[in-house]
Amino acid sequence: MQRIAETCAAILTPDPAISERVQAKLDAKTKPRRSLGRLEDLACQYAAILGTDNPPLPKKALLVMGADHGVAAQGVSAFPQEVTGQMLLNFARGGAAINVLARHADAEVIVVDMGVKEPVIEAGIESARVGAGTADFTLQPAMTRAQAETALLTGIAIARRLAAAGTHVVGLGDMGIGNTTSSSALTAALTGAAVEEVTGFGTGISDAVRARKVEAIRQGLQLHRPDRNAPLAILECLGGFEIAGLTGFVLGAAAQRMAVVLDGFIASVAALLAVRMAPSAAGYLLPSLEAGHRIVLRELGKVPLFDFDMRLGEGTGAALAMTVLDASVKLLHEMATFSAAGVSDSGA
Amino acid sequence: MQRIAETCAAILTPDPAISERVQAKLDAKTKPRRSLGRLEDLACQYAAILGTDNPPLPKKALLVMGADHGVAAQGVSAFPQEVTGQMLLNFARGGAAINVLARHADAEVIVVDMGVKEPVIEAGIESARVGAGTADFTLQPAMTRAQAETALLTGIAIARRLAAAGTHVVGLGDMGIGNTTSSSALTAALTGAAVEEVTGFGTGISDAVRARKVEAIRQGLQLHRPDRNAPLAILECLGGFEIAGLTGFVLGAAAQRMAVVLDGFIASVAALLAVRMAPSAAGYLLPSLEAGHRIVLRELGKVPLFDFDMRLGEGTGAALAMTVLDASVKLLHEMATFSAAGVSDSGA
Repeated sequence: MQRIAETCAAILTPDPAISERVQAKLDAKTKPRRSLGRLEDLACQYAAILGTDNPPLPKKALLVMGADHGVAAQGVSAFPQEVTGQMLLNFARGGAAINVLARHADAEVIVVDMGVKEPVIEAGIESARVGAGTADFTLQPAMTRAQAETALLTGIAIARRLAAAGTHVVGLGDMGIGNTTSSSALTAALTGAAVEEVTGFGTGISDAVRARKVEAIRQGLQLHRPDRNAPLAILECLGGFEIAGLTGFVLGAAAQRMAVVLDGFIASVAALLAVRMAPSAAGYLLPSLEAGHRIVLRELGKVPLFDFDMRLGEGTGAALAMTVLDASVKLLHEMATFSAAGVSDSGA
Repeated sequence: MQRIAETCAAILTPDPAISERVQAKLDAKTKPRRSLGRLEDLACQYAAILGTDNPPLPKKALLVMGADHGVAAQGVSAFPQEVTGQMLLNFARGGAAINVLARHADAEVIVVDMGVKEPVIEAGIESARVGAGTADFTLQPAMTRAQAETALLTGIAIARRLAAAGTHVVGLGDMGIGNTTSSSALTAALTGAAVEEVTGFGTGISDAVRARKVEAIRQGLQLHRPDRNAPLAILECLGGFEIAGLTGFVLGAAAQRMAVVLDGFIASVAALLAVRMAPSAAGYLLPSLEAGHRIVLRELGKVPLFDFDMRLGEGTGAALAMTVLDASVKLLHEMATFSAAGVSDSGA
């Protein structure tokens, strides 16, 4: 716990003076001021996160953490639980959507088994198992305090390793049958929002399955009565090992001045947990790609970069957002200035 | 005119049966059905446009047409008129935003002088000058019927050339000081919308300049009293040479089964003119990237792919959209199926 607190304390707010200087650079380029809109914001935020006026083209990674959820026993998902491990294998073998999109974005995919029911042994899958899936939170806390801390520390350690390897930006992906149920419960607990309002249709469930999901979340909240100002206790009672790992990663990345790209609901909830533990971490989150959940994004103060109605997770949205980040940094590097190109400025 | 009518008649509606078969292919991939949302739509539409169930990764081009506008004399822009030619030079020399984003998207940039006031002579700029800028439409028709037809035929010829070179998708860009004034007037004429409603702040003009812009558009509409069902007459009275060229290009591209990506207001108005001349052309327009104008997009039946508050034109939004199209086609090519990957399906 000492180590987690130290990481939180090491997170500095990105320097707004850097953003301002990078904006001035962009204003000298051959285009009307601010006419590249959010691309300009991205380049400015990225520079401030790295702490330099002249940020390099990002070296990118996609971190996909997988784990199983005891609450899946309540029949809350359209897919059977063995799909979690099967999909981790698919990630390791390169055939999943995130592999295709990560190659497209030139990002390395890192796959971590944080606690799938049956261990997934395969080259290309890191084992950081906290347990054989969480317990069913309708009956008992999803994990122990020690498990939550272990998962957080795993995320922090991976962030340190990626930073040491020169990584600048990391997208967050998740895999875990039942993890939208956990994320909805976490959202209700962290924000006080109504269960009905935070419970969606996951990967495409029927009305009957959604009713079971709502009921499971209600039971969990009733059993644990979480204090919304105690993020670690909330994580322990209602979370998942992959969510805890991603939360730790966000803390570690912010402490190491890496940018984090969210993707969808589960990663956004993990980031919200991190921001509740260390508010300065919010400055390291680039706008997410997919909408995730509007309540979570509002809490994070983030407007999605775009929304293609994707609901896959895995980091697929983050991979697309990284290609947009690349574009924004290239504009900063490669565009001509008004004076160099001999173009008349409006003076505005 | 014969040639233009023939091109319009040659445009076939993309076959919906192809989209359905490609959707079935995507449904067999390791992801919940439809969980990649609009990426799936893009791949399906692209396949239908090309007329094949197995479309190749797109060969891409960005067509940027530039011309001057007589109405600029009414003081409707923040920038002086010489910027049109200066920016075409900047495009040819590779320093503009569109050059950076086109390189990012691996798209060839094609720069055409459709009628800048002073000819822009430079390697890398094609000369297809219809005149030395249009006339001021507050005083007389912007161009003659013969000029409108010449510009349309130029666009059609470029489409044939690009198709012959194996191009699959083309983004549309524009450059022309004063061309948002022309585009607003065209929109009002084509849709019957109120002038106030279709007139924006262009590249960033003051309230006073915008008032002059509104007044110029009112004068133009009053002088020419356009029939909204006569697109060619509307183009002649209120258009620009680059807009006419892009309109011709959309017609030619649709006739050649190439996909077209819109970018912002001017390109969207050019596409609306094309669709009014040949309604089947609408099926060849991929969702635009930037919002353009909601009235124009509503008329075209297109929902923007995303909106980054960009208002530069040049095809910058189209270049970003092309990287998303690439991603969607790669998913179709590279993702594993449930059966090949040994992943359990939900059966839903």
